[in-house]
Amino acid sequence: MNGTNLIDLLKYRQSDRAYLSNPVEKEKLERIIEAGRLAPSACNAQPWKFVIVDEPELKNRIADCTSSKILGMNHFTKQAPIHIVIIEEKANFTSNAGSLIKNKTFPLIDIGIAAEHICLQAASEGLGTCMLGWFNEPKVKKLLNIPKSKRVPLIITLGYSASETREKRRKDIKDIVSYNSY
Amino acid sequence: MNGTNLIDLLKYRQSDRAYLSNPVEKEKLERIIEAGRLAPSACNAQPWKFVIVDEPELKNRIADCTSSKILGMNHFTKQAPIHIVIIEEKANFTSNAGSLIKNKTFPLIDIGIAAEHICLQAASEGLGTCMLGWFNEPKVKKLLNIPKSKRVPLIITLGYSASETREKRRKDIKDIVSYNSY
Repeated sequence: MNGTNLIDLLKYRQSDRAYLSNPVEKEKLERIIEAGRLAPSACNAQPWKFVIVDEPELKNRIADCTSSKILGMNHFTKQAPIHIVIIEEKANFTSNAGSLIKNKTFPLIDIGIAAEHICLQAASEGLGTCMLGWFNEPKVKKLLNIPKSKRVPLIITLGYSASETREKRRKDIKDIVSYNSY
Repeated sequence: MNGTNLIDLLKYRQSDRAYLSNPVEKEKLERIIEAGRLAPSACNAQPWKFVIVDEPELKNRIADCTSSKILGMNHFTKQAPIHIVIIEEKANFTSNAGSLIKNKTFPLIDIGIAAEHICLQAASEGLGTCMLGWFNEPKVKKLLNIPKSKRVPLIITLGYSASETREKRRKDIKDIVSYNSY
């Protein structure tokens, strides 16, 4: 782990709202999903499924669920070649008991952690992401045949960033003194 | 960012349930909190405060709130020299609107992300952490003068790990091929 400088990576990650049409390499995508899989969760419940939507037509239909003409929101989502749809799965007995007794929805905390693992790994692969929480959830579930009873807390857009701030940010972090390793 | 290998770090991080009494260096602690501060959040609401409890007597009283003699839970928390108490703060207007309209508690997702930034930075500094979601929240709030109306979703124990699995894991990750950089 010599040379790891996580703070730089945390600063480099941004919510990318402009993408190039370049496809994402399969091996990169696999490492990104592996990063999500490695996320810790309350009582190790792993209350998630990650659905990779990369078939162009279906992906564009998911993108339509995340943008709004009226609100002028998220028109960039169609540019991203991949959408990662995160389904909230049932937690295990102890996590459910904790959520109930302590009145906290642990799976949402867990999904935040897993989603950020995905975004950080993507950043470390030179890819851009944006987490989306505002979308037409019933429509997304219908398109992907996800049972109505399940929730879809987040969708992550993934692709090579076309954002102009990327290059600036990459230069900025070079000025930061490298300090952490173990 | 040459040499970054995030996947190794994700594999190295574990929930540490045994700590040495060594104190945590102030500059390491500051970078760990900085990592939390850098976390993305819905509509950039940053709905959190991090309370660093390092005064030994108060820290031990917080530790008492996280362990249970009856359930045999979390007896290790007193060993950790630092407890980071995460308070859920009010989100901003757009995040609140999203939570309400889309029926999702965005601040919990956000706090999961921030907590994992803290744990990953700690791991990159050679420190151990454990996220705790099960504790006597009213008592914690009383000890720290946190208003009753606020929630405390997580407490993170922080310190040098005494866990035997650490050394094994450190060796294991050396066998993983280094692949990611940008």
